[in-house]
Amino acid sequence: MDYQRRQTEIQNALARNHLHALLISALPNLRYLCGFTGTAGALLITEKRSLFFSDGRYLSQAREEVKGSRVVIAQLPPLAAAAGWIGANLKLLAGGRRWKIGIEGEHLSVAARSRLERSLPSGCRLRQAPPLVERLRMVKDPEELDSIRAAARLGAGLFEVVLKTIRPGLKETEVAAEIEYAAHRAFPTIIAAGKRSALPHGRASSARIPARGFVVCDFGVILTGYCSDMTRTVHLGRPSEAQREAYQAVRRAQQASMAAVRPGVSVGEVDLAGRKLLKKEGLARYFTHSTGHGVGLEIHEAPRIAAGQTEVLQAGMVITIEPGIYLPGQWGVRIEDMVLVTGSGCEVLASTSTELITI
Amino acid sequence: MDYQRRQTEIQNALARNHLHALLISALPNLRYLCGFTGTAGALLITEKRSLFFSDGRYLSQAREEVKGSRVVIAQLPPLAAAAGWIGANLKLLAGGRRWKIGIEGEHLSVAARSRLERSLPSGCRLRQAPPLVERLRMVKDPEELDSIRAAARLGAGLFEVVLKTIRPGLKETEVAAEIEYAAHRAFPTIIAAGKRSALPHGRASSARIPARGFVVCDFGVILTGYCSDMTRTVHLGRPSEAQREAYQAVRRAQQASMAAVRPGVSVGEVDLAGRKLLKKEGLARYFTHSTGHGVGLEIHEAPRIAAGQTEVLQAGMVITIEPGIYLPGQWGVRIEDMVLVTGSGCEVLASTSTELITI
Repeated sequence: MDYQRRQTEIQNALARNHLHALLISALPNLRYLCGFTGTAGALLITEKRSLFFSDGRYLSQAREEVKGSRVVIAQLPPLAAAAGWIGANLKLLAGGRRWKIGIEGEHLSVAARSRLERSLPSGCRLRQAPPLVERLRMVKDPEELDSIRAAARLGAGLFEVVLKTIRPGLKETEVAAEIEYAAHRAFPTIIAAGKRSALPHGRASSARIPARGFVVCDFGVILTGYCSDMTRTVHLGRPSEAQREAYQAVRRAQQASMAAVRPGVSVGEVDLAGRKLLKKEGLARYFTHSTGHGVGLEIHEAPRIAAGQTEVLQAGMVITIEPGIYLPGQWGVRIEDMVLVTGSGCEVLASTSTELITI
Repeated sequence: MDYQRRQTEIQNALARNHLHALLISALPNLRYLCGFTGTAGALLITEKRSLFFSDGRYLSQAREEVKGSRVVIAQLPPLAAAAGWIGANLKLLAGGRRWKIGIEGEHLSVAARSRLERSLPSGCRLRQAPPLVERLRMVKDPEELDSIRAAARLGAGLFEVVLKTIRPGLKETEVAAEIEYAAHRAFPTIIAAGKRSALPHGRASSARIPARGFVVCDFGVILTGYCSDMTRTVHLGRPSEAQREAYQAVRRAQQASMAAVRPGVSVGEVDLAGRKLLKKEGLARYFTHSTGHGVGLEIHEAPRIAAGQTEVLQAGMVITIEPGIYLPGQWGVRIEDMVLVTGSGCEVLASTSTELITI
């Protein structure tokens, strides 16, 4: 990965955001910018320097992984160590100016900000920075795309495990365990069967797969740090006419949203394309979540593909398209795939059939 | 679980913390106070009321799970919905007083706090509350202890899977996958073999188990929401004299820290007991992390068992005792068990042998 380029992009963005430095501690952002995969670190990027702070537990790991930054191992927590370093070097860094440090407002806690403020010298000011790293991360570079494609392919293969495993009487968690075993490194898998399929975010539970009904299977892998995310809904036994129609409507909604994906289109339009279709079928009120989200180092990252959002798609973004409808207490259907925004439209990653499978 | 009692404890704590309400959105705290296991919610506890806010995705789940609170399903994100409700009811709630709302400083992000501030009416003030819920959670009630004991027992059984699985040439992730499969719902397992055993927080990697060397195995399950956490270090092939001595020193350090555990003792003293022993052996500089942490709804929760910490142990706390030493680039050893603080000392949960096993 080209950590140097990514850090340079951040350095180039500092001045136009009226910042002298950016202080990063969100883990996926650390991994993206300097390669660190541990759980405690802080990266300080100034106009000319880049320093990575961690503690004794990560001595070897930081030295091995971190690229493009000088590694400082301290006795203090990483943010406090960064503050200490700034204190010792402020004269040199700021040359008498008030030194403005951008923080990650969406990630830094209120208490961590207070502690940081107290340990910084008086010549510094903290400012909530725009999500500079998240914006960079939205458009994937070729090496990242290789990882994501591989993850999507591996993830899609898990559906065969689903089909082989699922049968009435098994616990949802047992099906999930088979999938996660096959994945080696997986997310908490969603297996939501029968009435539980109507829970858009139902985790696998100890509920048993019923003889008849929808089973929502939402699964993914993490491969070299990159995530896959996919959902298929299968039906045990014969679906009713209403269920069959609803399934087809969700499928067509997914196709409609996919058809809307191309550079220059807003994510809100992509959401609307699928939602409109469900509205025509009288099902829009059961589509209770957004259409999708970016995927990369995190399973959910920018952009959000939701009603009213104005973010504009760019080639190289990877997003999910996952409409679903949920009839509380009855049943639910969701179909999800990852798509890469290409120069002229989109490419479904690990494209597999979305036809209704009955078991 | 007695959600009503827990919420009443919070209500009783409001006045003495100069708060009129507490606004909670950290997921383990939500689960602890009202039973909600989803991923988006906000709980507003005032002196007399308790309201739980969530969005459409959690309609059925919130109604089913939440106890002791009125469930409000809103179109807005949960914290914004709570702010809206406060706005509509402030006259009634505050009766002209300035209404002080406690927030979870360690969990709420700087940006979420700003958004909340903007959507609240002018008669409100946000104050960083002490970790009231975390403090309650430190001392486990009998029902929680049942869950933790069961989790610890199930978790300890996984070590047999480790012993059956581990052999030179396997990838660390393959061993981890076997463990996680056996656990059904597990944490990311740490399998760190050979030189990688010297990484205190090395996750399982694609590195292969070498023919000779230590393998640190850190594994756990989540059972009815409660976590287990355990580490054993095995040696493949014949350990050197230095390795054997280091292993025994870590083992004695664990025993020394356990012997220090009883109500009224500070967590710093528990840390010191083990650290002192390693100092005598000239190994203290390789013990680069703290001695342990609380375990419950989270794998890492209060209290932290670390040098200089003054938190005092109380009966009913469940903590880990996990000294380790790490020689960078060479090898590492860690031994970890969960202990319950009893009236007079401690009880090792799922006590199993810590003798050195060579494979």
